[in-house]
Amino acid sequence: MAKIALLGHGVVGTGVVNIIATKAEKLFKETGEKIEIKYILVRHDYDVDYKEKFITDFSIIENDEEIDIVVEAIGDTEPAYEYVKSALKKKKSVVTSNKELVAKYGYELMQIAEEKNVNFIFEAAVGGAIPIIHEVRNCLKANNVNSISGILNGTTNYILTRMIEEKMSFDVALKQAQELGYAEADPSADIDGIDTCRKICILADIIFKNHIYPENVYTQGIRKVRLEDVDILKSIGGCIKLLGIARRVDKCKIFIITSPFVVFNESILSATNDVFNAVQIETDNAGIMSLYGRGAGSLPTGSAVVNDIVECVLNKGKTIYHGWNTENKYLLVDHTEVPMRFYVALDESYEKIKDIFEDIKILCAEEETVFITSKLTLKSLNEKLNNVKVKSVLRVLD
Amino acid sequence: MAKIALLGHGVVGTGVVNIIATKAEKLFKETGEKIEIKYILVRHDYDVDYKEKFITDFSIIENDEEIDIVVEAIGDTEPAYEYVKSALKKKKSVVTSNKELVAKYGYELMQIAEEKNVNFIFEAAVGGAIPIIHEVRNCLKANNVNSISGILNGTTNYILTRMIEEKMSFDVALKQAQELGYAEADPSADIDGIDTCRKICILADIIFKNHIYPENVYTQGIRKVRLEDVDILKSIGGCIKLLGIARRVDKCKIFIITSPFVVFNESILSATNDVFNAVQIETDNAGIMSLYGRGAGSLPTGSAVVNDIVECVLNKGKTIYHGWNTENKYLLVDHTEVPMRFYVALDESYEKIKDIFEDIKILCAEEETVFITSKLTLKSLNEKLNNVKVKSVLRVLD
Repeated sequence: MAKIALLGHGVVGTGVVNIIATKAEKLFKETGEKIEIKYILVRHDYDVDYKEKFITDFSIIENDEEIDIVVEAIGDTEPAYEYVKSALKKKKSVVTSNKELVAKYGYELMQIAEEKNVNFIFEAAVGGAIPIIHEVRNCLKANNVNSISGILNGTTNYILTRMIEEKMSFDVALKQAQELGYAEADPSADIDGIDTCRKICILADIIFKNHIYPENVYTQGIRKVRLEDVDILKSIGGCIKLLGIARRVDKCKIFIITSPFVVFNESILSATNDVFNAVQIETDNAGIMSLYGRGAGSLPTGSAVVNDIVECVLNKGKTIYHGWNTENKYLLVDHTEVPMRFYVALDESYEKIKDIFEDIKILCAEEETVFITSKLTLKSLNEKLNNVKVKSVLRVLD
Repeated sequence: MAKIALLGHGVVGTGVVNIIATKAEKLFKETGEKIEIKYILVRHDYDVDYKEKFITDFSIIENDEEIDIVVEAIGDTEPAYEYVKSALKKKKSVVTSNKELVAKYGYELMQIAEEKNVNFIFEAAVGGAIPIIHEVRNCLKANNVNSISGILNGTTNYILTRMIEEKMSFDVALKQAQELGYAEADPSADIDGIDTCRKICILADIIFKNHIYPENVYTQGIRKVRLEDVDILKSIGGCIKLLGIARRVDKCKIFIITSPFVVFNESILSATNDVFNAVQIETDNAGIMSLYGRGAGSLPTGSAVVNDIVECVLNKGKTIYHGWNTENKYLLVDHTEVPMRFYVALDESYEKIKDIFEDIKILCAEEETVFITSKLTLKSLNEKLNNVKVKSVLRVLD
């Protein structure tokens, strides 16, 4: 018998309860143990048919030696961080879907887990149901990962899809996303790229075995994405996607960024629509690989959490994933110094700009002059744009 | 030290040699052991800088107690089957990329591996570098898989992509694939769907824990795919892909087929071009998931083999994947009795056929009458088509 304490009973928590009930027999076959939720930590209890499991005092969980695994599904870092740290110190494995917690405190929490021979795992924190962390950790042992690029936030991808497919403005698409429950009343964490940034940092942590803190990563959201640019790009087989990207630049440097990018139709990322997430990985031996699936939702995220619970049950007393060591010291490169192509829309005539830019691909030369540059740094692009009226600048994914 | 014997030194074998050499340090970190290729079984030796490892007599491998792991990369089933069986009986784990072997003898070989507490694993046999078997086995423990659909053969996907993108006829595209080394001189195993069938059978074996033999699966290749149909479909946002599909129809019935299917652009499968492979999985909790990557090639396939070698080293003396038990007795349903939509091109006027078909979506009513039906079985479609001149019938993926 494996006894679980679940912290939180929101979207993810109810998914976990549901799956553990409906998949009891399958989970028993997988683990050889009955998995039982003993406690559910809530702020106030209310009426469900398992309300006898509700408790409001975390110390009951912490001090109950029967509890092997704590599932953290509260969100935010306070009090989640204190609870998780204290559970690990009491030799309980922790499964979480909380990307903010992992991005901020992952390094410290993995170290405690190692010291105590328990596990701290978090597949559901990135890409919901997509087993991206599992793949990077377990399936690429004969590869170096050179880069990872992902659509990691369903809310922004939903908004961008509506702009692309239905020519909605950003504001109208955001409002629709809020009405459908895909966006929060305060949508900043999603649309300003903060959520994507946390997730790409977690992936970079695992790939490069270096803790990269979100506050050190340039992060730009989708508030300023213009419908005009969406339309022009659509006509040439491209679209705008909010991507988190982490790329090894050389042996000791990483380029990491969250930003809207122009993606062309050859990429699987461009076919990732609505609330779906996708991740593209570039490796040295296996080449390019992608994973695609549901990035959020009660059952999809719950299923990733329950898969992690199974991992903890099967690996009791043994830390299966070790934290990033501190030997690898990567430097983050300044994003303005990384050469790439840019999509540029200027409120200027072609005549005015044609001597400033060489080797550009003109997309439109009517009211605005719109073009894609050859590879250059943002720094040198900005120098060129010094005396012209800029409408948009977007990075292009190569 | 883990000592390996490699059977075969072709495309996959050389990839394995290459990766074990270039990734020696990383593999040591992953396993805590040095991985060394002790023997390479070849028919005739020739000059490479490790030719001292070449042997031509399998009994040396079989009788060498130092060998923990045998990597079978010969292809075909004779003598591969005898070698693998004998290695397993001698308590050596076996890693293979040989789909024909697994599809035909997987059930028996997994049983022997279990009896001997060793492993028989074969990630590279399906989807090359894509860790599809790993995902189905390890990442979906909180899910039932309801169906799996895949582009599992790079050769046919390359040919179909050329037909779609460059309006090449099937014959011209096949010739180009042969010139580029993507298709064999005798291309039948690829273009007649035999290779895809083996792979979808292996995936079905794992998902449904029932050995399904390729000879029991309806298999149709791409020889008869017409450029006219490719063009009409392209104009409505669709394309033709050779798919292997295995779907749970009810608690005890499976529909499994290899056939060209019409795929619409909403699906990630339609964005899978050239020699890439992709698999789409439908689950009850995680929803739809896809994996995409290189389905063949020396390093991509080699990297999947080496990942399996690492699994064997880490799990010495312990069978990690158990064979399908015989409790689950699924029946295969007759493919002509499964309702689906069909794309139909007839050499008839719309007037002649309009009373035969209700509820169709007309795509073209010029020289040929082309339409997509509503859901019906092939059996009833064939009854309707009894007295009309048929140019093509294609299944539509829903």
